[in-house]
Amino acid sequence: MIDLRSDTCSRPTTPMRQAMAEATVGDDVYGDDPTVKALELTTAELLGKEDAVYMPTGTMTNQVGIRAHTEPGDAVLFDQNAHVYILEGGAPAAFSGVLPRLLPGIRGIFGPDDVDAALGRPHPFFPITIPAPNRLLCIENTHNIGGGSIWPLEKLEAVCRTARTHQLRLHLDGARLWHATAATGVPESVYAAPFDSVSVCFSKALGAPVGSCLAGPKDFITRARRFKQQIGGGFRQAGIIAAGALYALQNHRARIGETHALAQQFAHGLAQLESIILDTSMVETNIVRFRLASADAAAFVEAAHRRGLWMLPSGIDAVRAVFYLDIQKNDVVRAVEIVADCLKELSVNESIDSAPRNTTAHHGAGY
Amino acid sequence: MIDLRSDTCSRPTTPMRQAMAEATVGDDVYGDDPTVKALELTTAELLGKEDAVYMPTGTMTNQVGIRAHTEPGDAVLFDQNAHVYILEGGAPAAFSGVLPRLLPGIRGIFGPDDVDAALGRPHPFFPITIPAPNRLLCIENTHNIGGGSIWPLEKLEAVCRTARTHQLRLHLDGARLWHATAATGVPESVYAAPFDSVSVCFSKALGAPVGSCLAGPKDFITRARRFKQQIGGGFRQAGIIAAGALYALQNHRARIGETHALAQQFAHGLAQLESIILDTSMVETNIVRFRLASADAAAFVEAAHRRGLWMLPSGIDAVRAVFYLDIQKNDVVRAVEIVADCLKELSVNESIDSAPRNTTAHHGAGY
Amino acid sequence: MIDLRSDTCSRPTTPMRQAMAEATVGDDVYGDDPTVKALELTTAELLGKEDAVYMPTGTMTNQVGIRAHTEPGDAVLFDQNAHVYILEGGAPAAFSGVLPRLLPGIRGIFGPDDVDAALGRPHPFFPITIPAPNRLLCIENTHNIGGGSIWPLEKLEAVCRTARTHQLRLHLDGARLWHATAATGVPESVYAAPFDSVSVCFSKALGAPVGSCLAGPKDFITRARRFKQQIGGGFRQAGIIAAGALYALQNHRARIGETHALAQQFAHGLAQLESIILDTSMVETNIVRFRLASADAAAFVEAAHRRGLWMLPSGIDAVRAVFYLDIQKNDVVRAVEIVADCLKELSVNESIDSAPRNTTAHHGAGY
Amino acid sequence: MIDLRSDTCSRPTTPMRQAMAEATVGDDVYGDDPTVKALELTTAELLGKEDAVYMPTGTMTNQVGIRAHTEPGDAVLFDQNAHVYILEGGAPAAFSGVLPRLLPGIRGIFGPDDVDAALGRPHPFFPITIPAPNRLLCIENTHNIGGGSIWPLEKLEAVCRTARTHQLRLHLDGARLWHATAATGVPESVYAAPFDSVSVCFSKALGAPVGSCLAGPKDFITRARRFKQQIGGGFRQAGIIAAGALYALQNHRARIGETHALAQQFAHGLAQLESIILDTSMVETNIVRFRLASADAAAFVEAAHRRGLWMLPSGIDAVRAVFYLDIQKNDVVRAVEIVADCLKELSVNESIDSAPRNTTAHHGAGY
Repeated sequence: MIDLRSDTCSRPTTPMRQAMAEATVGDDVYGDDPTVKALELTTAELLGKEDAVYMPTGTMTNQVGIRAHTEPGDAVLFDQNAHVYILEGGAPAAFSGVLPRLLPGIRGIFGPDDVDAALGRPHPFFPITIPAPNRLLCIENTHNIGGGSIWPLEKLEAVCRTARTHQLRLHLDGARLWHATAATGVPESVYAAPFDSVSVCFSKALGAPVGSCLAGPKDFITRARRFKQQIGGGFRQAGIIAAGALYALQNHRARIGETHALAQQFAHGLAQLESIILDTSMVETNIVRFRLASADAAAFVEAAHRRGLWMLPSGIDAVRAVFYLDIQKNDVVRAVEIVADCLKELSVNESIDSAPRNTTAHHGAGY
Repeated sequence: MIDLRSDTCSRPTTPMRQAMAEATVGDDVYGDDPTVKALELTTAELLGKEDAVYMPTGTMTNQVGIRAHTEPGDAVLFDQNAHVYILEGGAPAAFSGVLPRLLPGIRGIFGPDDVDAALGRPHPFFPITIPAPNRLLCIENTHNIGGGSIWPLEKLEAVCRTARTHQLRLHLDGARLWHATAATGVPESVYAAPFDSVSVCFSKALGAPVGSCLAGPKDFITRARRFKQQIGGGFRQAGIIAAGALYALQNHRARIGETHALAQQFAHGLAQLESIILDTSMVETNIVRFRLASADAAAFVEAAHRRGLWMLPSGIDAVRAVFYLDIQKNDVVRAVEIVADCLKELSVNESIDSAPRNTTAHHGAGY
Repeated sequence: MIDLRSDTCSRPTTPMRQAMAEATVGDDVYGDDPTVKALELTTAELLGKEDAVYMPTGTMTNQVGIRAHTEPGDAVLFDQNAHVYILEGGAPAAFSGVLPRLLPGIRGIFGPDDVDAALGRPHPFFPITIPAPNRLLCIENTHNIGGGSIWPLEKLEAVCRTARTHQLRLHLDGARLWHATAATGVPESVYAAPFDSVSVCFSKALGAPVGSCLAGPKDFITRARRFKQQIGGGFRQAGIIAAGALYALQNHRARIGETHALAQQFAHGLAQLESIILDTSMVETNIVRFRLASADAAAFVEAAHRRGLWMLPSGIDAVRAVFYLDIQKNDVVRAVEIVADCLKELSVNESIDSAPRNTTAHHGAGY
Repeated sequence: MIDLRSDTCSRPTTPMRQAMAEATVGDDVYGDDPTVKALELTTAELLGKEDAVYMPTGTMTNQVGIRAHTEPGDAVLFDQNAHVYILEGGAPAAFSGVLPRLLPGIRGIFGPDDVDAALGRPHPFFPITIPAPNRLLCIENTHNIGGGSIWPLEKLEAVCRTARTHQLRLHLDGARLWHATAATGVPESVYAAPFDSVSVCFSKALGAPVGSCLAGPKDFITRARRFKQQIGGGFRQAGIIAAGALYALQNHRARIGETHALAQQFAHGLAQLESIILDTSMVETNIVRFRLASADAAAFVEAAHRRGLWMLPSGIDAVRAVFYLDIQKNDVVRAVEIVADCLKELSVNESIDSAPRNTTAHHGAGY
């Protein structure tokens, strides 16, 4: 099975497993795990922040980040398709009690004017007690539902400057920040510089089995450790898996560009196929999103799965494929063939698809 | 001062005050207040529901309604400009822990397709644990930020039918439902019929000083009473103010149409003025929203206030005026004159307004 | 019916009703209600605090007070029988997300050592992330479940000093603070002085129909207004009922001692009766709690109710009676007679009560 | 360093590391990790429950269990020294919004009467909206702060029967349930039978580096998976660490009795020492709690640490030592010597300890 559902499906390699098997460990709740500490230090340095804390998942680093910046009843600005808003189980509301305000990003990217417009202008005639106070802006780079899109550095900095004029705090969901750096050469620390806090993920294309880090100022990370413990992130001899994350940082980070090449290969293969709607210039990193001109995404991904290619529907006529280091060039050749076969099969079966199409991104079917 | 900031500024009349002064009362927490009971019964009957509960505010009836339908981590569908989402202090997240999903209403009104699109389609390849489960749809009729817009009954019923196919519960924010009935002749109970729960407000154009009711099935209202008490809505001899609400229902509800006539008079007066952007056909009830062709709303409402007319800015170039029974026809004549004077003053001062305009509704400056 | 269930059953008098009927009002959400402002100013002065805010209930003033001092996950110290912990619908957890730590008060009163013991001593070997951080101490004076007990001023001050050495904030639930002052002559402002915030209630023995105030520093009260609005406390022409509260402050506060005399009269009457366990020296204010030597409290209060005397059971063999200005001396004479009659009736029916007795205060049956 | 701070300090053995290094893994969020599934199945069978879910920590399994049984504003009954109440960061309130009601357990163990007394008796005269409704009872077996105490099976069953008559749900915090079984021979499934849900921990004396399982009915566990994901417990290739937990179950569970023998050896050694207050019959499993007749616990544990023995203070004069498979008999001999040396040193330095002693367990200093 060629598994392109998500780069979270990456599996540890033999040398990574060996690094984990040999890791020095301690009880991380007591602050005793040297491998966890090494990972936290390495990540903080890489991101140009004072401190970092290791947690089991990217959802936890993001949601603890939001929690540590806010209190219930605060408003937080998200892109309308942000992972933290759409794909983290309602945690912004359930765990932090914050009200999302949505920005009209295109592929996850918006401008300073969008931030201004979302914030409104206070006026003395209007009671300040009525709206939720705006506290935090989150940006996702690269943007998952946006198809792995990269924030242009200048736009990122401009948006952050505008947010600061409104006294907003800033959090970067950098689960796939490595891809932005691999594609543009801009260091992670430069992307991270305008933000108070940054989360990064080791278990996606980097290939580690488990874990993420949240980085930021020392006192903020101390505060985050409290909430990490509170929601059950205080694992014990976490060095076992932190060793995998550290290995990934040291050995796979430099290879992230390979996943982009695979995505390009796939995208260009698909672009040859009639019935596939795909602008290859929109494929900036390791994610390929495409639309089907005349087939239902659900039926299509099931047909492909029966043939050995696993992808996810991401809308009524939209499909997502994600690349990571476990995938080989040959796999991509085969994947394109399977897509072509499925389109043929479905075009015969459904001959004329006359159903009305709604091309809106479907929140519930994201990933 | 002609106060058009909001119909919440309405004041009790002399006979209403007398009704309150003479009210029979008891401790409502012990279920002993006969006037509160009479108000609850009258309201439930009017809305065609089994039971109702009186609370201090519309925010409380809406937010207790949301709380009683959901648990933290559920998703609730709101129009993007819904009062319960924009103007209730972040309560959906802070008190109920629910995640808003936003519908692209136009003047607060959306269609069944918007609901379908927002919900997405579950697929077995995608983990059901990741998105927040959709639980409730809220509709606001008439719609405040929408400018007092009325939901067409058929559209309302179609949206509710679609929501039911997705197992959604349904709550109607009917703070100004009286206006829909006054304008169309459709009884409140018909508008309320598709919904599980309905909130209505007595302290807006109805003119009572304090209070709202939440209506619905008996066991739902019993459950709502628990949350009312929990957040401090268990007032004691509430019959004093409930008497005002009951008086308003019995004496002012039939007069709500008068507030629409005032709004029409004002809107038509304004439409004559150059520099005012206003489509009078959009004025359906007691709210008039208009835009300024070449002035800043903040400066404009301040200029008007200095002349004795009080309105609220509702966007960078948008203004809102709301009518209620305290306002007289003469007040409207005078209000139009003041608007004209202000426009003259501001056009002299600002001569050319070359600032770029953002016509998006400004959330933070709503009301 | 002689209603001794609670002083919350007090009803507005004719002159109080007149004051309400004549009140000048405005929209309190916009800060326009002069009567509400007058009440807030009067209350703040009386308590020696910078500012105050009027809300519909004592539950709301207490819970907004707790919310404004804390964030979710903080620990708050309560007496084990505190009203805010036992009798406010779980609001400390549901609304503020705070963890109660309980102090072993006797009749609601504890000492500095109890505070020290509850706080523990941090030690560098122990991870600071594990326990909830202690943030706030609440004291209730007079203490409801404690039987209207009064905190000795020196003890109160000593406890508050100890709390300050632990960086705790301090909130006084002064719903019945008037009674402490009436009994001891110590001004309310002296009792309030060690606290950051104080709530007081107008709808209990003071006799107003609705409402409470939360008092404290200016910025704290501004913050509290936000949470008041969020949970639906932003009532509109609240001056109608605030006028009743103001009348009560000005006219009934000086008469609170009368309710203590009624309680003494009742307690001494009961103490004559065999089968009643009651130490009259424990009756310090307007609440009388007594135990039944050989009858079930539930059956007893039902028997009394059939004869025209309404009290509440407050444990398996405990009963509470509360006095307020609506109660007359003759009522008390009659109440004692009814109690005597009930005891006779029940002793005949139950002849020998051999059931095991649990004299623990029953949380669920408090009030 | 002989580390007796906690059995959470246990480290993976070489064969356990090898089992982890060779584990078959997949993306557990997509339900693809066979090792995680095997662990969940094995645990569910062992506990006699339909299903189980693996999570990073015992805090998460307990708090997700509480969350899945309740909604905010519910009351949950805990022993006054329960780990879930005292030592999980305020999570019952912060994450689930539930109000703790405390039971007066002795060494964590209480009786059916305590449950009855805590619940009170509802009475029709009292408003049902006022107290938080009782929803869940939690029991901890063996009990950490209780010193590793074991619940007698009959008492456990009697308490659970009583709880059922009050419609309470039941959760067992079985983080150290293995120890009860090892000591009494009663199978884990028998201890678990009366409960709806059970959490067990692999990273304490069992010796696995990370993780716990929550077990219960199928639909409950499905619901729990939602909350696990929401708070960031959805780790990916968790099979790496699940393999360690599975290894521990299969290879260390049978050896748990060895940790009890070490605890006995230590306790009997200490009992010989003057100045140690310790009833060896209270040492039932792998935890030894003792008191110091004339020394401060903080100074004592620091002195011991300087000599190579690491323990935690658990009160002003109380100390805790915990045994696990990494500890050898020789270590215990040495530990007793160090304790004796420290007592000598401190008795010289402090000669007469005349400070008043508070022997209450110190919540903040638990573990």
